[in-house]
Amino acid sequence: MTSPIQLYEVCLRDGLQNESVVLPTDFKVAIAERLVQAGFRDIEVTSFVRPRWIPQLADAAEVVRRLPRVEGVRYWALVPNMIGLERALECDIHHVATFLSASETHNRKNVNRTIKESLAGLKKVIASAHGEGLGIRSYISTAFGCPFEGAIDPGRVLAIAIELLEAGADRIALGDTTGMGHPEKVRAMLSTLVEGGIELERIALHFHDTRGTAVVNSYAAWQLGARQFDGSISGLGGCPYAPGAAGNACTQDLVHLFERLGGAQEVPGGHAPLTGIDLELLGSIGMDLEAAIGRPLSGRYHEFWRGHLEREAKTA
Amino acid sequence: MTSPIQLYEVCLRDGLQNESVVLPTDFKVAIAERLVQAGFRDIEVTSFVRPRWIPQLADAAEVVRRLPRVEGVRYWALVPNMIGLERALECDIHHVATFLSASETHNRKNVNRTIKESLAGLKKVIASAHGEGLGIRSYISTAFGCPFEGAIDPGRVLAIAIELLEAGADRIALGDTTGMGHPEKVRAMLSTLVEGGIELERIALHFHDTRGTAVVNSYAAWQLGARQFDGSISGLGGCPYAPGAAGNACTQDLVHLFERLGGAQEVPGGHAPLTGIDLELLGSIGMDLEAAIGRPLSGRYHEFWRGHLEREAKTA
Repeated sequence: MTSPIQLYEVCLRDGLQNESVVLPTDFKVAIAERLVQAGFRDIEVTSFVRPRWIPQLADAAEVVRRLPRVEGVRYWALVPNMIGLERALECDIHHVATFLSASETHNRKNVNRTIKESLAGLKKVIASAHGEGLGIRSYISTAFGCPFEGAIDPGRVLAIAIELLEAGADRIALGDTTGMGHPEKVRAMLSTLVEGGIELERIALHFHDTRGTAVVNSYAAWQLGARQFDGSISGLGGCPYAPGAAGNACTQDLVHLFERLGGAQEVPGGHAPLTGIDLELLGSIGMDLEAAIGRPLSGRYHEFWRGHLEREAKTA
Repeated sequence: MTSPIQLYEVCLRDGLQNESVVLPTDFKVAIAERLVQAGFRDIEVTSFVRPRWIPQLADAAEVVRRLPRVEGVRYWALVPNMIGLERALECDIHHVATFLSASETHNRKNVNRTIKESLAGLKKVIASAHGEGLGIRSYISTAFGCPFEGAIDPGRVLAIAIELLEAGADRIALGDTTGMGHPEKVRAMLSTLVEGGIELERIALHFHDTRGTAVVNSYAAWQLGARQFDGSISGLGGCPYAPGAAGNACTQDLVHLFERLGGAQEVPGGHAPLTGIDLELLGSIGMDLEAAIGRPLSGRYHEFWRGHLEREAKTA
């Protein structure tokens, strides 16, 4: 029996944060509602960064206040520092995410700190969040490669991960910020972490599809036993400080892959559906995101679905 | 030691055949020259279908006549029937490809014949080509699923493959015509064929990226020992008789994957490059194809490369 996949949806935060068109709070809350309806149990809804840094997410508190509360659904908010955590604690949110980069150069460009400085700050944030009883995931960005520094030593990622977990983080999310990962690197990274004492259950994979490897990397990690994957509807998202970083892993691509892998109806010896997510509903959410953003989104399954709707409209 | 990958490039035939903008013969020959320069050893250059069916490929004989002859490079031409083979035999081409579909409905829509009728015709074509000493590959389309019939029984594909090989085909190319394949299906298919007595060396995989699975399917097949993969530069191509069939596997995506998998410089225990193909040159060929076709191509690595060039132009 294959364990079910846990998908973690980031379109409302990682997806939107670099979009210049600021979307209404109503729209974001409606998207969150539909994500819950589609079957997601982990949704990153916003970030408590300084509002003038990312105007798109300036409505963080309001978004959180208006989220539909549903049994079993965990909403997550990014908190960059103690001020962010304090803002989060004023809201009804019980899960927070922290971030730093495994690359000194990328970390400096992103938050203007050394990794050591970031770790010192985050340990306080994590300890405090832990003390408040919040769930905590900690992103390690550029874990599979940095556009400025190139290859990243998995040993460095392990050392950072251990510090974060010891400080009280529940989970580590390995970010392939500019899509430099590939299956062999995924294998090397997961082996290093597991041999270093970190259970697979505490590791999430956050791939980007910059060079067409998000799906194959997810599959490779799944083969090695990983079960937690991040995606963004229709591939919305990127990273402003990293050249060539177009496109988070497209959630629909991941759902399609894992549902097919689990499709008992098609494959002899196949299993039950692995994600339990409604792919058709995701297609419709993706089309609405695309319309709201005002430019074509490029997730593979998203483009397939758009073509499907266009053909249906023609024959109707 | 991992065996090297053999990539089979189809942009000039499968890629172009559905494009309404008819490209000049000069341009096609120049693309073929650059593909050879990039390192390809197997290039499908045209099709000897009836010219009025596919005006784009009406210059088949002229393209073949003008190809640069290079030691070790095999040019392939599609031949739908005996008339096509005769046209091919009048030219200096030594490798031909035949096709039929594993789905009755798709085969009927594509060539207006039953599978049995197609097989009877192709056996004569193959025997004749074999007698002339030509190399022969035989496509089996919709092998991983049909948009009209749904799942395709691997046993049916095996039966067709055996008939084609017994008739004299050297290799079978399994076409995922509308991108319905996934890694478990790939596993089921390859197991069935190998258990049925067909050596992996005689099987090529021709994936489409319609739903974002071309790269992961290639990886899954590679893990199982397959070494021959078809791609089209920048993902050019599709199938006019199959709803939703946008995009052959993007060759750059495959080269990137396999070069990374083989990248000794990055991965401890890594191997030598697996394809020997110049990815940067492919980027440039892809940009020229895009300009000639006059619409954006959507291969993942192609889009990454386009972004890379745009950023370079800005900072220059």
